[in-house]
Amino acid sequence: MSKQTLPISDVPAPGPRASEACCSPLTREPLGEDRAVELARVFKAMGDPVRLRLLSMIASHHGGEACVCELTGVFDLSGPTISHHLKVLREAGLITGERRGTWVYYRAVPQRLGEVADLLDLAPAT
Amino acid sequence: MSKQTLPISDVPAPGPRASEACCSPLTREPLGEDRAVELARVFKAMGDPVRLRLLSMIASHHGGEACVCELTGVFDLSGPTISHHLKVLREAGLITGERRGTWVYYRAVPQRLGEVADLLDLAPAT
Repeated sequence: MSKQTLPISDVPAPGPRASEACCSPLTREPLGEDRAVELARVFKAMGDPVRLRLLSMIASHHGGEACVCELTGVFDLSGPTISHHLKVLREAGLITGERRGTWVYYRAVPQRLGEVADLLDLAPAT
Repeated sequence: MSKQTLPISDVPAPGPRASEACCSPLTREPLGEDRAVELARVFKAMGDPVRLRLLSMIASHHGGEACVCELTGVFDLSGPTISHHLKVLREAGLITGERRGTWVYYRAVPQRLGEVADLLDLAPAT
C-alpha cells in the first residue's frame, strides 16, 4: 500500500535557476557559502547508489517519466525505503512526482541536472 | 602542526576514466550497480558545503593549485577538520595533494569533474 501513499510535492525546485548557476561555475571562482549549502544538498541527494540509479532510471525512461511501479521491483528494498529515496531526490529538486490513478509517475528535472553540469564547467584557472 | 602532517596520497583517482563515463550518461540509460556505487562516492564527497567550497577554492585558484595554508583560514573550523574534508575529496579522486616544503598544495582533477559533468549529459529520453 505504500506505493499508493507516496507524498507528492508540486513545489518547484528550490534555489537559483540554471541561468544563474552558469555564471559561477566551480572552477571559475570560489563558491559562496549560501550557494554551497544549496548545491551540497543536491550532490548529497545524488551521493547514494540507490538514489543515483533511481534518478538514472527515471531520467532515461522512454517518454521521460517512470511509474513507481516500474522502479520498486528492481531493488531488493522495501517500498517505504524506495519511497524515502524518491522523496530525497524530489526535495533536492532532481525529480517531480505526479499521481495519476493508482500510481505515481516521476520525471527528472533537466534544469536541475543542467545546473549541476554547468557548475562543473571545465575552464580551469590559470 | 596538523597542517604539516596531512596524509598525502599519490594513488590515482579510482574507477573508470572520463572517456568511459561519456558512454553511459545518467539520462541515456540506467546506471549499472557498480558504476552507481563508484559515482555515488564522488557525489557524496561533494555533498557537503565545506567540501564543495574547498573544491571550488582549489579548482578556481590562480595557477591551478592552492596551498593548504590558504584554505584553512577561510573557515571557522579546526585544522584537523579541514584536513578530514580534504582527505574525503582526495579519496573520491576530485583533488590531489603534493607536499612541497612545509605545505601541502592541492590541485583539482579535471578528468574527475569532467566525468561527473559527462554523466549529467542532458539528452533526455523521448
